[in-house]
Amino acid sequence: MNIGAIEAGGTKFVCGIGNEKGAILERMTIPTTTPSETLKRVVEFFEGKNIERMGVGSFGPIDLDPQSMTYGSITRTPKPYWSHFNLIGELKKHFSIPVAFDTDVNAAALGESVWGAAKGLDSCLYITVGTGIGVGSLTEGKLVHGLTHPEMGHIMVRRHPEDTYTGHCPYHGDCLEGLASGPAIEARWGKKAVELVDKAQVWEMEAYYLAQAIANYILILSPKKVILGGGVMNQKQLFPLIREQVVNLLGGYVHHKQILEEIDSYIVPPGLGDNAGLVGALGLALKE
Amino acid sequence: MNIGAIEAGGTKFVCGIGNEKGAILERMTIPTTTPSETLKRVVEFFEGKNIERMGVGSFGPIDLDPQSMTYGSITRTPKPYWSHFNLIGELKKHFSIPVAFDTDVNAAALGESVWGAAKGLDSCLYITVGTGIGVGSLTEGKLVHGLTHPEMGHIMVRRHPEDTYTGHCPYHGDCLEGLASGPAIEARWGKKAVELVDKAQVWEMEAYYLAQAIANYILILSPKKVILGGGVMNQKQLFPLIREQVVNLLGGYVHHKQILEEIDSYIVPPGLGDNAGLVGALGLALKE
Repeated sequence: MNIGAIEAGGTKFVCGIGNEKGAILERMTIPTTTPSETLKRVVEFFEGKNIERMGVGSFGPIDLDPQSMTYGSITRTPKPYWSHFNLIGELKKHFSIPVAFDTDVNAAALGESVWGAAKGLDSCLYITVGTGIGVGSLTEGKLVHGLTHPEMGHIMVRRHPEDTYTGHCPYHGDCLEGLASGPAIEARWGKKAVELVDKAQVWEMEAYYLAQAIANYILILSPKKVILGGGVMNQKQLFPLIREQVVNLLGGYVHHKQILEEIDSYIVPPGLGDNAGLVGALGLALKE
Repeated sequence: MNIGAIEAGGTKFVCGIGNEKGAILERMTIPTTTPSETLKRVVEFFEGKNIERMGVGSFGPIDLDPQSMTYGSITRTPKPYWSHFNLIGELKKHFSIPVAFDTDVNAAALGESVWGAAKGLDSCLYITVGTGIGVGSLTEGKLVHGLTHPEMGHIMVRRHPEDTYTGHCPYHGDCLEGLASGPAIEARWGKKAVELVDKAQVWEMEAYYLAQAIANYILILSPKKVILGGGVMNQKQLFPLIREQVVNLLGGYVHHKQILEEIDSYIVPPGLGDNAGLVGALGLALKE
């Protein structure tokens, strides 16, 4: 069966044709411009490919409530032109097939649980640290939604005692995303993350924030695997720093060998690498 | 059908006989002393009552992994005599019926979703603020477990700028429970909560911590209802303070009318009052 997969991002749309085994057979990257221009190219890519299902993991916030009049839409985004655009409605005009829809990070968490670092587990977190911070959660075998979809990147964290940066989140100022996303690193230190590789203080502080968030996620969701991806996590020196601080913060309270003895295999990079989102979109289509 | 229900607490065991409608027909409270003494009285209460199922909501931490050799045990508790006591194993020696087991707070969340303040919803949080702080979570229709069961009362929160109290959690010092449980209030102000009713500063500070935790829980779990019970929450003046601070902290980011317009019906006391735990244990038995 040919399955369509879309990782819909604020910078680019990655489109792929895949199969039930999680393999991507063909892919194309389309820059995110206006909705009409972008979707025109997306539709052209999928036309004539005999896809029987489609899965879409999208940037957000998005409307995932099947009862809602605006189900399938991007809701309120600072990205010009995209607020209230009904992404799924538009795709459905062109393809009379089942189209599954979820957040990009929930898709990635699902993909990792089926084919990646959390293979076979009924619970994991997928955290992306890049332009923003997003987290997808598979819990008790289900992707987590409720009143809306979670927005875990915006939780409040304790400020590092030496951090004077005010934070850049337009809603919360110094929430996690406001303090620890890629743009926050650049604004605080005056250089991009990739130019700060040798500066230990940068990564100590980054790990301080990410470890706090992860410790809280563990206390709240008790995931069986914590997967860290996104551009900032290409700084692999962050992994040991984060693992050490998570263990310290939990203080032995979560008494499980995965944390006490096997933290290196508990907090890990994505098994699917940069493909987690696209392969996850395949997973969404199959789950529908 | 007669159903046995036990709310197993560190101070008392509440035992009840109930039915499928969530009604408790008979109840008895037994002080928690040693495991053997306590369980002897529990068993005596249920004997001859023709119960066909049993549900147990317990203080913790507890072992809920069905694959574990110690499933059904209290694991490591500071409470003398109870560490590693196999509560479910002991009950099973006396009653050859299905016995469901979960945390006291997960049981309460379930009870509230079936018969209480979150009736008909597939998602809610039940937060108890008393001697400790515990939180049960129903998410996507499932009680949340993973690596272990969640320990949401121990998340890290930002310290109130005027708070000089160091916190009393033996594991984390000034985590949420260390700063906002009943004993923390008493240690900080030198009096019990009930003697501090008129002191506005006490409740502003308490609401500051609880609202932070609730805002983070909302960002992480997106519950459809937040229920606050426990001894400290008998101070009803806390509710409006907490609601206001949660709305402020979220800063309009979680764009849902339940938060933006209807916060009074979103953050609420238990519909089952002090019975949430016991009725929830009935719910566990029926869910098994």
